[in-house]
Amino acid sequence: MAKVGVVLGSDSDWPVMEPGYKILRDFGVETEVLAASAHRTPDAVRSFAESAKEKGIEVIIAAAGAAAHLPGVIAACTVLPVVGVPVSGGALSGMDALFSIVQMPSGIPVGTMAIDGGKNAALYAVSILALKNEQLARSLLAFREAQAEAVYRKNEALRAKIEYGEAPER
Amino acid sequence: MAKVGVVLGSDSDWPVMEPGYKILRDFGVETEVLAASAHRTPDAVRSFAESAKEKGIEVIIAAAGAAAHLPGVIAACTVLPVVGVPVSGGALSGMDALFSIVQMPSGIPVGTMAIDGGKNAALYAVSILALKNEQLARSLLAFREAQAEAVYRKNEALRAKIEYGEAPER
Amino acid sequence: MAKVGVVLGSDSDWPVMEPGYKILRDFGVETEVLAASAHRTPDAVRSFAESAKEKGIEVIIAAAGAAAHLPGVIAACTVLPVVGVPVSGGALSGMDALFSIVQMPSGIPVGTMAIDGGKNAALYAVSILALKNEQLARSLLAFREAQAEAVYRKNEALRAKIEYGEAPER
Amino acid sequence: MAKVGVVLGSDSDWPVMEPGYKILRDFGVETEVLAASAHRTPDAVRSFAESAKEKGIEVIIAAAGAAAHLPGVIAACTVLPVVGVPVSGGALSGMDALFSIVQMPSGIPVGTMAIDGGKNAALYAVSILALKNEQLARSLLAFREAQAEAVYRKNEALRAKIEYGEAPER
Amino acid sequence: MAKVGVVLGSDSDWPVMEPGYKILRDFGVETEVLAASAHRTPDAVRSFAESAKEKGIEVIIAAAGAAAHLPGVIAACTVLPVVGVPVSGGALSGMDALFSIVQMPSGIPVGTMAIDGGKNAALYAVSILALKNEQLARSLLAFREAQAEAVYRKNEALRAKIEYGEAPER
Amino acid sequence: MAKVGVVLGSDSDWPVMEPGYKILRDFGVETEVLAASAHRTPDAVRSFAESAKEKGIEVIIAAAGAAAHLPGVIAACTVLPVVGVPVSGGALSGMDALFSIVQMPSGIPVGTMAIDGGKNAALYAVSILALKNEQLARSLLAFREAQAEAVYRKNEALRAKIEYGEAPER
Amino acid sequence: MAKVGVVLGSDSDWPVMEPGYKILRDFGVETEVLAASAHRTPDAVRSFAESAKEKGIEVIIAAAGAAAHLPGVIAACTVLPVVGVPVSGGALSGMDALFSIVQMPSGIPVGTMAIDGGKNAALYAVSILALKNEQLARSLLAFREAQAEAVYRKNEALRAKIEYGEAPER
Amino acid sequence: MAKVGVVLGSDSDWPVMEPGYKILRDFGVETEVLAASAHRTPDAVRSFAESAKEKGIEVIIAAAGAAAHLPGVIAACTVLPVVGVPVSGGALSGMDALFSIVQMPSGIPVGTMAIDGGKNAALYAVSILALKNEQLARSLLAFREAQAEAVYRKNEALRAKIEYGEAPER
Repeated sequence: MAKVGVVLGSDSDWPVMEPGYKILRDFGVETEVLAASAHRTPDAVRSFAESAKEKGIEVIIAAAGAAAHLPGVIAACTVLPVVGVPVSGGALSGMDALFSIVQMPSGIPVGTMAIDGGKNAALYAVSILALKNEQLARSLLAFREAQAEAVYRKNEALRAKIEYGEAPER
Repeated sequence: MAKVGVVLGSDSDWPVMEPGYKILRDFGVETEVLAASAHRTPDAVRSFAESAKEKGIEVIIAAAGAAAHLPGVIAACTVLPVVGVPVSGGALSGMDALFSIVQMPSGIPVGTMAIDGGKNAALYAVSILALKNEQLARSLLAFREAQAEAVYRKNEALRAKIEYGEAPER
Repeated sequence: MAKVGVVLGSDSDWPVMEPGYKILRDFGVETEVLAASAHRTPDAVRSFAESAKEKGIEVIIAAAGAAAHLPGVIAACTVLPVVGVPVSGGALSGMDALFSIVQMPSGIPVGTMAIDGGKNAALYAVSILALKNEQLARSLLAFREAQAEAVYRKNEALRAKIEYGEAPER
Repeated sequence: MAKVGVVLGSDSDWPVMEPGYKILRDFGVETEVLAASAHRTPDAVRSFAESAKEKGIEVIIAAAGAAAHLPGVIAACTVLPVVGVPVSGGALSGMDALFSIVQMPSGIPVGTMAIDGGKNAALYAVSILALKNEQLARSLLAFREAQAEAVYRKNEALRAKIEYGEAPER
Repeated sequence: MAKVGVVLGSDSDWPVMEPGYKILRDFGVETEVLAASAHRTPDAVRSFAESAKEKGIEVIIAAAGAAAHLPGVIAACTVLPVVGVPVSGGALSGMDALFSIVQMPSGIPVGTMAIDGGKNAALYAVSILALKNEQLARSLLAFREAQAEAVYRKNEALRAKIEYGEAPER
Repeated sequence: MAKVGVVLGSDSDWPVMEPGYKILRDFGVETEVLAASAHRTPDAVRSFAESAKEKGIEVIIAAAGAAAHLPGVIAACTVLPVVGVPVSGGALSGMDALFSIVQMPSGIPVGTMAIDGGKNAALYAVSILALKNEQLARSLLAFREAQAEAVYRKNEALRAKIEYGEAPER
Repeated sequence: MAKVGVVLGSDSDWPVMEPGYKILRDFGVETEVLAASAHRTPDAVRSFAESAKEKGIEVIIAAAGAAAHLPGVIAACTVLPVVGVPVSGGALSGMDALFSIVQMPSGIPVGTMAIDGGKNAALYAVSILALKNEQLARSLLAFREAQAEAVYRKNEALRAKIEYGEAPER
Repeated sequence: MAKVGVVLGSDSDWPVMEPGYKILRDFGVETEVLAASAHRTPDAVRSFAESAKEKGIEVIIAAAGAAAHLPGVIAACTVLPVVGVPVSGGALSGMDALFSIVQMPSGIPVGTMAIDGGKNAALYAVSILALKNEQLARSLLAFREAQAEAVYRKNEALRAKIEYGEAPER
């Protein structure tokens, strides 16, 4: 089965990636998690990135905050697609992480998600893996449909509340 | 052969995507280009997105400026991976396009490139396609090596100029 | 009676629009609320926008956060005036939503309100509807006068507190 | 016939509004233009805003740059819908004008367009006027169709150029 | 005795100006406070600004948030020096108020303080009034000295705590 | 006659302050200009600030770019009112200068003008000096009236051009 | 032994610098702390900066918030390397402090750390002092290794938690 | 003699660093220049950083634009002090480079200069080297004095021009 590597710049970034980890698990995608810092443990990051392909990893998700070099450093060491997740926190609220991840120079791309977009990173990895796994493609379609259904149900609930004069509480 | 769809929010965005188009051509990836606006021609965009998969397209690159809804609107209509390219221009220099593309809500991801990162979008698409095409993977590695060689050569030229007292002209 | 459509990108945006909903109700304007996502339920959004005019809707208010495509996507499918409300929340505090809504490209405008300006969206819709409904125009004038009165009263209260040495508590 | 007032904070803002003026003229909407500063000629602005309705004006477009108070000052003096156009220029590239126009406090809304969105302001005014003028509504639909046609034609031209190996020049 | 006018865009801005009000009181400067909105009560603002000079007011402090037009609107109606105080709050944290106040166009200046700088506005007004009141000038010098003394004392306290191994608690 | 000190962080800032210098000259205000850097020549700045009052200077205008410490450093050494002018230039377009000047901490205010607002700084200084010089106050009123007249004339010119089908050229 | 001067713009900045103070203490670097304001006590700052070298200080760390002139003012009075630490707080979250510190004009540099980067300032000072103290260089290497070890241990802990189905709590 | 390493993310960054290179040469500091990309040639960067100390390099200056990871990647591989120079260019004008360089996480500092501050990086390196080289310290003091003299001369020239009625041309 396809494998996704999930690298966190710090174990404190786990809450941002946990929803994505659950998505991958629910889709049946094998996941390897590593908390390693591009600056404090550059060797661990490099060694993970360089060996990822031969370990069967096909997509690497990398999440980091502040001067978030992790996704770019990984992308420099592998030709696998890298999905970057800027993590908020600190005085600049993740704007620094966003710019550090998305503004990659020509030649080494990182597919960047929204700030704190850990769940979307997983869905994006699934959409990539689904290109060669029709089962995953069907699961993704089903996920989309269920997601739309949830929106419809919430709409019904909201309209009912409004009609009966009860605004939903915040 | 794998196919990539390249959608431009306006034909004036072509200069941003042309380097990417050339990358795809050089890698031998078949490419279909469409200039269509998410706002002025929503039907054309929707119809392209909905029929992309059955036409054999595997990755869609979407480039747009300002309130750049194009990549997100396409991603809403397909489970194929969508690569978004914010295009600069206008008073906000592409910051508006970047936020409009990267900050996708949970459930519908877009893998976002740097502002004006048309070439990287193509390389990212190649890295995705390479997961099921070993020939592409080898080409991508070769591209990376040639790219590194170019950096080495420019370094030699720069050092030579400095040594001989001639600063390279701007 | 004139009708206003209020579309929310998520039912969680209701607290931002509820004050506007109450304004519309107080002005006697019939209101249809829909929670539908431009990305998760694009068909629901499109179908609402395309059928709005024939259902008697005259103004559409659309509120959304993050990469807030909803107002623009609706505006692309109708010639009715669309009022956009950027919703704050997330790492970028609604700056992303503001740029995604206000920076619409030439040809498809959205009249944008302040971030979280749900109440003003309703007042703006009323000002539009008042162009063909003199009763509404008179109500709007009365609202403005009552609003000014409230400012005058608060000023008196503040000055009294200051004079008697009691600063109003925060 | 319906009338639109177009107020410019400075005569130097005319290039931003001229495309909108032409749109209004093409739609057959009578237009009154005034260049008047909210700060240098506050009486002229106030007097225009207060008398607009009785002169038959139904929508006021106000364009200004920097600390662009003009649209808000006008909106404070009339219940007509006011459409604000932030004008770029100066060190902050119109971001100051955007914030000064769009972030109106509760009670007095301004429907804000993109920075330099003079043409869209006119189209927005037309969409408002079209609510009580079926002829304008049909013209607006025709405009939308012509606009879509133009996109289709440009797409064809772009594809032809690409096919024949000639990239369109920048 | 010299008089300072303090205008608040809303009575909720009082906590920002109260420290300034106390400064003025401590310096023996007579102060007139008015809570009035440039948008909701434009007549009250205009009438205050136009009559300020003949009432003996010499400096006007105006504090407002969001699209903070109040200081500029007042400055347009008087030749007295106007001191503007951007008030934070809302999604843009006062950046909108800062730009709306400081970026005044050529011809009508507003002397702008830091965001929430109500106390500094009062000190600035005192420095202006001190130009023709030597007693105030001496009081301002004494204030500066006392202020420096307070810094010295806090420095001593901090160093003592550090020396004895007790970090001051946050 | 009253005197204004004009300090430039660099002689290259003169084009920003020259219009202000001319305003002061036209109002008959004696002006002393100094180009001195808060960082490269701190002694010159300090000595100017400390001796300004006894030299008869009543208001100090200080213009600087980038990390523009000049106005704050001067304000720390005098109780005269200091008017700060952020100068644009460099990668951050004067946003750095604006923040460095306006965000002064509690206790030492600087009355900040718009970025590149050299002319307004002079007008602000005049409005301060006019508090004790009725002749200046009358001149300032006359300036305001002439300024309004200029707006009226430009308005007439613009309307004439529009009427006769000639748009004013950009 | 080498000495580091740590200057705080306010004693309230101590929590940002305390972790750095502890680093310096742990490395055995003698530290002199001073809380002094560039604006409220300019003489104290100047006197500290001018006498630092002869007191044996080799590196000066200066931390300040808002219009943070402190590091630049110190750098103007000494040729010792100055390390600047922008302190967050206030409406602009330290962006103002960052720009005020990092954007120093040509001629007087300040080595700027991340917002609230008090600990890194100390490590940077140590790296400078280590150039002439081999013992410090070895300690710094050991610190780096311990720091990497901590990352490895946290990674193990995170992976264990994930494996046993217990997500670490936020 | 002490050695400084100057690493450029691209040979196109040379114009930003050339003034710094000249400063180092004028101070008699041996300099080794390398153009190498953290992403395109990660091995070259790493190998330079890891071997720098044993080659006698004492300070490393690293200049890069966009998602400027170069200084941080180098700092992760050496305990030498690293001076980072954000390079402007691209849609975000160097704001992306600034955030990517300055916002380093705790543990691995980079002393960051202003955007395009190549000259200051060299002066900062000299101030560090001067700690163990009294000759350099004296040269730096002389440089500072000459720099101040240049400001004084420019001030005289400006004042002469103003006195004789000739504004210096822009």
